[in-house]
Amino acid sequence: MAHIQLPEGLPGIRGAMAFRPETAKPMNELAEVLLRGPSSLSRGERELIAAYVSSENDCFYCQTIHGAIAAEHLGGNEALVNSVKVDFESADLSAKMKSLLAIAGKVQRGGKCVTPRDVEIARDCGASDLEIHDTVLIAAMFCMCNRYVDGLATVQPEDEEMYRQRGKRVAREGYVSVSQEYLAAAAAVR
Amino acid sequence: MAHIQLPEGLPGIRGAMAFRPETAKPMNELAEVLLRGPSSLSRGERELIAAYVSSENDCFYCQTIHGAIAAEHLGGNEALVNSVKVDFESADLSAKMKSLLAIAGKVQRGGKCVTPRDVEIARDCGASDLEIHDTVLIAAMFCMCNRYVDGLATVQPEDEEMYRQRGKRVAREGYVSVSQEYLAAAAAVR
Repeated sequence: MAHIQLPEGLPGIRGAMAFRPETAKPMNELAEVLLRGPSSLSRGERELIAAYVSSENDCFYCQTIHGAIAAEHLGGNEALVNSVKVDFESADLSAKMKSLLAIAGKVQRGGKCVTPRDVEIARDCGASDLEIHDTVLIAAMFCMCNRYVDGLATVQPEDEEMYRQRGKRVAREGYVSVSQEYLAAAAAVR
Repeated sequence: MAHIQLPEGLPGIRGAMAFRPETAKPMNELAEVLLRGPSSLSRGERELIAAYVSSENDCFYCQTIHGAIAAEHLGGNEALVNSVKVDFESADLSAKMKSLLAIAGKVQRGGKCVTPRDVEIARDCGASDLEIHDTVLIAAMFCMCNRYVDGLATVQPEDEEMYRQRGKRVAREGYVSVSQEYLAAAAAVR
């Protein structure tokens, strides 16, 4: 049971967002631009960073849904997503992606954990300043989302197929679009 | 020196936001609605939560600027802000505010640290579901902002008077308004 009375039938962050549409709107807009907007990192790569940080924060809902979205963007490669969560250094990824995941992992522990050397390695692997910036912000954003989802003790179903289906839809339509259904319903109730 | 090449003369989160106006816009909108929008928690109380969490995360820029904004909203009471950072349990605050700061401190450590008992205590002190929600989200949001500011190693001046003056302006004008100057300048450069 969630810590506060959230709308029924909406798992994870969706229940929290339907409870407070005013804050949900900019949060979905941030996710949209950061995870799906124009970038030299692919949508799959950005969702991998999100899933990895959520896994490090032990947030079941976020790591499963963003893992599913990442897999969908990566041609259904669920094995790659799982290998990133278990040990990204031995995953089938470019050296640049590994260097960015290392930075993301440092951010998850605390912003000051990122060292000039971490950034130098990423740059040597070809990462641009914008890619380093976005990696830091994606990791930071999921430190927010994971705490929001778990700090309210939202309902987090264990049915993996639910996440797989939802992940396909979010990958196709995006955050702002899929949030309209529950945000509109929440507004109608008020 | 920051980890990436940020615009000159903009300390803390302002430099990072000017570097990436696309993500800065929804972040400022989230701060505006969550810290300044309609709420039964005063703006001073919400900024106290922000300053406290930033202090727990050891982010100098965020704890100093949000401490200054909180003090401005609280009639210039800098002593109260400092006492919250040192030991909120012995600060001159309502039992309800102390129970919300306790929840915020748990969120800072990790969402799962918040217990049903923490929430029960807050409710017994008169906190509403919306106040508990907003406390969790403010704490979570500053776990993002603190990591963004420190994860990029942004410039963080030590001059307290700078924060005091800036704090007065943010308290008066709000986040979306004060961000216009550097976001407009960033857009012009591109």
